[in-house]
Amino acid sequence: MQIAIVLYDRFTALDAVGPYETLGRLPGADTVFVAERTGPVRADTGRLALTADRTLADVPSPDITVVPGGPGQIAQMENTVLLDWLRAADATTTWTTSVCTGSLLLAAAGLLQGRRATSHWLTLEQLRRFGAEPTGQRVVTDGKYVTAAGVSSGIDMGLTLLGAIAGDEEAQAVQLLTEYDPQPPYDAGSPAKAPEQVVDRLRSASRFVMS
Amino acid sequence: MQIAIVLYDRFTALDAVGPYETLGRLPGADTVFVAERTGPVRADTGRLALTADRTLADVPSPDITVVPGGPGQIAQMENTVLLDWLRAADATTTWTTSVCTGSLLLAAAGLLQGRRATSHWLTLEQLRRFGAEPTGQRVVTDGKYVTAAGVSSGIDMGLTLLGAIAGDEEAQAVQLLTEYDPQPPYDAGSPAKAPEQVVDRLRSASRFVMS
Repeated sequence: MQIAIVLYDRFTALDAVGPYETLGRLPGADTVFVAERTGPVRADTGRLALTADRTLADVPSPDITVVPGGPGQIAQMENTVLLDWLRAADATTTWTTSVCTGSLLLAAAGLLQGRRATSHWLTLEQLRRFGAEPTGQRVVTDGKYVTAAGVSSGIDMGLTLLGAIAGDEEAQAVQLLTEYDPQPPYDAGSPAKAPEQVVDRLRSASRFVMS
Repeated sequence: MQIAIVLYDRFTALDAVGPYETLGRLPGADTVFVAERTGPVRADTGRLALTADRTLADVPSPDITVVPGGPGQIAQMENTVLLDWLRAADATTTWTTSVCTGSLLLAAAGLLQGRRATSHWLTLEQLRRFGAEPTGQRVVTDGKYVTAAGVSSGIDMGLTLLGAIAGDEEAQAVQLLTEYDPQPPYDAGSPAKAPEQVVDRLRSASRFVMS
């Protein structure tokens, strides 16, 4: 089963690496990082690059697509090469997935019309522009479309999808291998739980990077 | 504050990316991925490479070191270039840290003698060989040494250390930005919680990759 994880300039690294480290451990998976061009692709901080081993054109019909989010998503909303590839790949995928603002790219490609979906909490409402119905859930499955909320939620999505494809025991084995027994030192991982001043601070900052 | 994240052949990607995506968002952080040679470094699956932007020699005195684990750790236990660098860097760090079997590299460099530490649950007892005291905690702080358990625990470590350095609100902001509100679909993330047959399966498989 071929899993294509899409990279583009200024993606968020954990959005891609969460599903890679979980779903990518599906037995027999042929996981491949793809981008418009092969070679290093810089993440949003500028401090890390992941290698795209194949171009989008090299991988026309993956079984699963994974689209990460990040500040670079905004520029990709107008990138017809990527949007055309997402549509063409979707014609043959068994699962089309995203993490964080990656869902806005699926939506811009017209793939989430009339579907329930999620995104980073700061951009959730933008899904409506493309005819999708935003939900506050962390992982949303609607048919073959699986969208995850912000950044770290790709780990939960990866395990969920791994379980759906290969069975509970396979997913539990990967959860144990990656020792995913989360113990965050704070309880501030959603706008409903974080202190109000922290939520306000991110809302203010996001005006400059998310529109 | 310079944060050096060490890469080596067959590291586990999430071990490195968890702290990068959390601790690396420390205001003013100069995060740099380092390895013996610059360029792409392949992770344990062979399906992903992260770029080392600087050599170890380029970054002799970081404020924080982060050492990931992975199957490649075993070969590094004899790598005097890396072990010498870890010791030299440690002479001036304010924090020396690891994720997963990265703690065995710190231990092999002689840095955990007489200290409490942790590692991936499958390799925890190996810490004793180097005079460290293994604990079952997910994140262990002993002086300036912070070690985290397997793979995904680097996210918890990154937030913990971020809070210690920059204060609770800064860490909460990063937790909210990365939407780290974990909702794993299973409760199998530690050997105490996973089904017995899953634990047994990983113990059997690990005989070939961890020794």
